[in-house]
Amino acid sequence: MFTGLSAFPLTPLRDDQVDLAAYGRLIDRLVAADVDSISALGSTGSYAYLDRAERREVAAATVEHAGRVPVLIGVGALRTSQVRALAADAQEVGADAVLLAPVSYQALTEDDVAGLYEDVTAELSVPLVVYDNPGTTHFTFTLDLYAHIASLPHVEAIKIPPTAGSVAEVRERVQEIRAVIPEQVRLGISGDGFAATGLLAGCDAWFSVLGGTLPHAMAEIARPALAGDDAALAESERLAPLWELFSEFGSLRVTAAIAEHLGQVDAPCLPRPLLRLTGAARDRVRAAVEELGLRD
Amino acid sequence: MFTGLSAFPLTPLRDDQVDLAAYGRLIDRLVAADVDSISALGSTGSYAYLDRAERREVAAATVEHAGRVPVLIGVGALRTSQVRALAADAQEVGADAVLLAPVSYQALTEDDVAGLYEDVTAELSVPLVVYDNPGTTHFTFTLDLYAHIASLPHVEAIKIPPTAGSVAEVRERVQEIRAVIPEQVRLGISGDGFAATGLLAGCDAWFSVLGGTLPHAMAEIARPALAGDDAALAESERLAPLWELFSEFGSLRVTAAIAEHLGQVDAPCLPRPLLRLTGAARDRVRAAVEELGLRD
Repeated sequence: MFTGLSAFPLTPLRDDQVDLAAYGRLIDRLVAADVDSISALGSTGSYAYLDRAERREVAAATVEHAGRVPVLIGVGALRTSQVRALAADAQEVGADAVLLAPVSYQALTEDDVAGLYEDVTAELSVPLVVYDNPGTTHFTFTLDLYAHIASLPHVEAIKIPPTAGSVAEVRERVQEIRAVIPEQVRLGISGDGFAATGLLAGCDAWFSVLGGTLPHAMAEIARPALAGDDAALAESERLAPLWELFSEFGSLRVTAAIAEHLGQVDAPCLPRPLLRLTGAARDRVRAAVEELGLRD
Repeated sequence: MFTGLSAFPLTPLRDDQVDLAAYGRLIDRLVAADVDSISALGSTGSYAYLDRAERREVAAATVEHAGRVPVLIGVGALRTSQVRALAADAQEVGADAVLLAPVSYQALTEDDVAGLYEDVTAELSVPLVVYDNPGTTHFTFTLDLYAHIASLPHVEAIKIPPTAGSVAEVRERVQEIRAVIPEQVRLGISGDGFAATGLLAGCDAWFSVLGGTLPHAMAEIARPALAGDDAALAESERLAPLWELFSEFGSLRVTAAIAEHLGQVDAPCLPRPLLRLTGAARDRVRAAVEELGLRD
């Protein structure tokens, strides 16, 4: 379940309500594109902005539409008891696994984060993916903490942050992590512009933001990369204008603009206060989609 | 309402439930200590960790116990519609004003934050305090943004982050802000160890973490500082061991440890995953309280 291309769909809003009809169609597209798994309610799925009822509804819709494609559900929240409730909900509606990021308001200590994963895994009956996303959580995992958490029951994968560098350099980092975690725990790369390198460097999976919106285009990188073929690097390099937009405006806003441009969701689809890209930024996204032929 | 010492009470939990009885006693103590206002559900009041029903209950209990002391209620949340609902709740239970921080998960742009304050102030009927707390929100206000937001209806004060430096240096910063905001908008300093300087430098109010737990001790700084008396600096300097603990472990954990040590709340009182200070850290807090004579 934790290998290959895991697609992170948007959770589109319409007048501040989850647009479940559009969401169902997004999931149908991912199933048709034959992604390896669907990670719903990740950062790309705006989980942090949705309340418990909305999250349960989105989780249920994902399972309903995903058919035989494995479903991972993000269960992060600021308070441990909220995470436990969300994990219970996800399991009740049939999620195959949960994704958990150490979301913070007050800065978290290593002990806080260890305690969070201990508390949550103690009552879980599906696998858990550690969701290491320092850009949004403002928490940085140490190798020691990876080692501790990866040894907890149900922890089967870690989604690691983007690592810059050559394949050889990233392989060093991957091996450094593998050396401290149990052998069966999978590693997934994130940061779409770093995915070709990450997979060629030995990651098992790619947790992909754009995979939720442009699954075929991302498969053009994932397929060779998973086969150890350097052609993945060239295809990723071809999409450099996208990665530049990601780094300038954030992957969520760019992906939302792409989905809106392609008519997959109504605009604006993001939860306020997050505003859609406008003006020159939006024009650049449109131009990139057209010039790169990303109709999907 | 936005002058003098504003006390930020903890919201103590007990078995993951708000301990309303203990909370009511905290508010009674603040009223007895004659603080100038009570800012409930601030960062010190763990607002970000509580759900809407809990926050409404805490807001109502604050108003009930505060008597004639003005009550400010924190209404920050990640999604604009959540903020609007919380602000409506706070007004319904009788809050005198609301405090709003631009809480983030995805990094916010200036336009996002301007839009948030525009949306919320458009339907408000009580004053709003802009809650600038970059340590927890990861958002930094520019002077231009202060100017725009301070000109919105209902915006009557800005809680500014701690500024290091001499009174003269901090006065420069205060004057720089005052130069771009309407004359009637008040400025409040935060960061308890910087409060004496901030008040002597011309801030109107002190939004005080420890004021919610040790109101008398904080009044010993606030009273001379508001009268322009440098004795405030000496009293603040005397409490340097506390400010060092704040900077090392964060003001919330240290304040919680003090309140637990003094028997104001049961331990542990913080929402998990936030763990209480233990071992040597806790011993240092206890020693500081005893050596500085902070029985309150």
